[in-house]
Amino acid sequence: MASAPKGNAVVGQSGGPTGVINASLVGVIEEAKKHPEIQAVYGAVHAVAGMVKDEFIDLGKLSASTLETVAASPSSALGTSRDKPDTEYCRRILEVFKKRNIRYFFYIGGNDSANTAYIVNSVAEEAGYDLRAFHVPKTVDNDLLVTDHCPGYGTAARFVACALMGDDLDNRALPGVKIDVIMGRHAGFLTAAAALGKKKDDDGPHLLYFPERPVSIGKFLSEVEAVYKKLNRCVVAVSEGMCDADGETWAKKIAQDAEKDPHGNIQLSGTGALADFLAAQVKNNLKIKRVRADTFGYLQRSFAGLQSAVDVDEARRCGRQAVLYAMQEDNGSVAMKRLGNGKKYGVELFRTELKNVAEHTKSMPAEFLNADGNGVTPAFVEYALPLTGELPKTEYLGGYPKI
Amino acid sequence: MASAPKGNAVVGQSGGPTGVINASLVGVIEEAKKHPEIQAVYGAVHAVAGMVKDEFIDLGKLSASTLETVAASPSSALGTSRDKPDTEYCRRILEVFKKRNIRYFFYIGGNDSANTAYIVNSVAEEAGYDLRAFHVPKTVDNDLLVTDHCPGYGTAARFVACALMGDDLDNRALPGVKIDVIMGRHAGFLTAAAALGKKKDDDGPHLLYFPERPVSIGKFLSEVEAVYKKLNRCVVAVSEGMCDADGETWAKKIAQDAEKDPHGNIQLSGTGALADFLAAQVKNNLKIKRVRADTFGYLQRSFAGLQSAVDVDEARRCGRQAVLYAMQEDNGSVAMKRLGNGKKYGVELFRTELKNVAEHTKSMPAEFLNADGNGVTPAFVEYALPLTGELPKTEYLGGYPKI
Repeated sequence: MASAPKGNAVVGQSGGPTGVINASLVGVIEEAKKHPEIQAVYGAVHAVAGMVKDEFIDLGKLSASTLETVAASPSSALGTSRDKPDTEYCRRILEVFKKRNIRYFFYIGGNDSANTAYIVNSVAEEAGYDLRAFHVPKTVDNDLLVTDHCPGYGTAARFVACALMGDDLDNRALPGVKIDVIMGRHAGFLTAAAALGKKKDDDGPHLLYFPERPVSIGKFLSEVEAVYKKLNRCVVAVSEGMCDADGETWAKKIAQDAEKDPHGNIQLSGTGALADFLAAQVKNNLKIKRVRADTFGYLQRSFAGLQSAVDVDEARRCGRQAVLYAMQEDNGSVAMKRLGNGKKYGVELFRTELKNVAEHTKSMPAEFLNADGNGVTPAFVEYALPLTGELPKTEYLGGYPKI
Repeated sequence: MASAPKGNAVVGQSGGPTGVINASLVGVIEEAKKHPEIQAVYGAVHAVAGMVKDEFIDLGKLSASTLETVAASPSSALGTSRDKPDTEYCRRILEVFKKRNIRYFFYIGGNDSANTAYIVNSVAEEAGYDLRAFHVPKTVDNDLLVTDHCPGYGTAARFVACALMGDDLDNRALPGVKIDVIMGRHAGFLTAAAALGKKKDDDGPHLLYFPERPVSIGKFLSEVEAVYKKLNRCVVAVSEGMCDADGETWAKKIAQDAEKDPHGNIQLSGTGALADFLAAQVKNNLKIKRVRADTFGYLQRSFAGLQSAVDVDEARRCGRQAVLYAMQEDNGSVAMKRLGNGKKYGVELFRTELKNVAEHTKSMPAEFLNADGNGVTPAFVEYALPLTGELPKTEYLGGYPKI
């Protein structure tokens, strides 16, 4: 292994924002400043889009207090991009890197970002340019391979768990059917987090639907009806990627119907459409009067002042660790391994190949889903609860014995 | 004034839940237990609906730690009801009160609840039954008369302010038009709270729309377009009670269109409909590609673990004070007066007549709205910011000087 090159570093944030992607950014900055091999630390404004346009800011000059505020802020402080660079795009990035003598590239994001780091690394190798390209994991969906879990998930999961705890109390107070649509196009981890605050047998959410378990409207309705008959209420958590029995998402099916609609200007593929569609199905088919639906939208990924302490800490560690690896290795992705059984919750970090993270994503393992596919198992709760931090205690009195 | 009667007390929670209505409940319970005139403290399960059905639980037996958990829990711990009792309904309540020797009636809720307390008090007077009926204010809408502000508003306002702070950062990171629909059918106070986290000139929300200021779609679109042209993004906060220029709510207009739709089974009067309608208007008319809309729904009134400390404290004090007034007066509603200028923020409580609170509701005063009707004034921020408690500090780096 050649010694670490002397030059500048760039860090970027890619894909959807999260509640702790800025903690990873600060981790990269604070560690990079410790290593004399790294001269300036540039921030790429709007990720790869800023890299090709040569738009950088100087992160090395930020005060310690600014860095702490950044680490506590949701969203992506450098701006982000949905661009998916191909080889040609990455060659243009490399030109900018050469011009600025950038020798370290840290990219915080999901599997597409790992893939970008991989391609940039490949074009640099081809060009004989000594570059160290590292990926730092980030996603609210928790769908990255190799790592036990992703920074960003714990904070979003905390939001969803607290939301459902409150919403279940609201539904006890004013009974009816309540449907909550939660992020997760292909993986149900975040929707599963809706169950983390459940304590009593009749606590909601009573039903959960995941992209991993397609369900017909008929099955969905009969399950809602069964809960409603038993409890006189029903709280349902639904992944935005919930699929019909044929495996196609309901979101897509509703959008197709809308295109056929001659009235035109009411968009049904908007954010609230799946929730409203499911609520209408319940209302019209089950003749239940009080049916409400909420779509959590961006609140679950960018809410100011709500972070999981464990998640922030791990996100920051992952950022720092990427820099440490870059002092010794050419490229890679930072991953987390959970400490073994019997130990207090914790993780150790390790390096994995960019390709291992870049190519595919992860779904919820079968052992986290109940047999009916409409709930989670204790194994999931054991997995996820340490990541959210302790949840608030709540109490409902209406079920206490009457006098 | 006759001395306080000896008998039992009942407390109920009415209307929509809030984040601190349980703190008021605990305030009533803890104060009631101090007064020997009050024997048992009953909780009416599901408000007036439980009273007529004689469904009560014994609140005097709850442990101190349970009471603290209740006070910290969102939603209405006793359950609530949307019933609006008339005189006949209240006579049935009185029969139950007589049977149980209930001499103290504490009702936590909005103006309808004050009206219920008023009617129950009237039928008791008619019947020559010595009852003390008190109303404790509660609403996220902040629309009660007489009181400076309502318990429940500060916590909901804190949620909305934090949500918009995060959402504005999200919109900086991934620019486009973002529309957030916020509770408030007739009063814009909660939507106005969306602006409380603004620090820099270009911080969002850039436009706010209130029930108090009707706006045509044409004006709405031209204002969004102007902001978008200037900033390349635009964050909009909209009251669910936003009205067209003719004063009718957009929510109602959309629902009417939906009824004419021959396709039938897609409900447009659901929670996401207004947000999706506005997003479609922007997308189709302004040809802006990235347009997103969220409806905050029940999260803003029932989110576990998020309370304004000031709001909790005031809610509990209002509950306690209702009991203290009941020892001296026949009936009334608890209200808050803000301490005079130059003093640190605080309130003193006072008693007002039930009728003063029961009959009408309050809109945002003109001095809280800017001249264009699409933003708030410093006077509003001065009014509302003490109620939410200190907001989180956040930082966005993307606008820092390029190097």
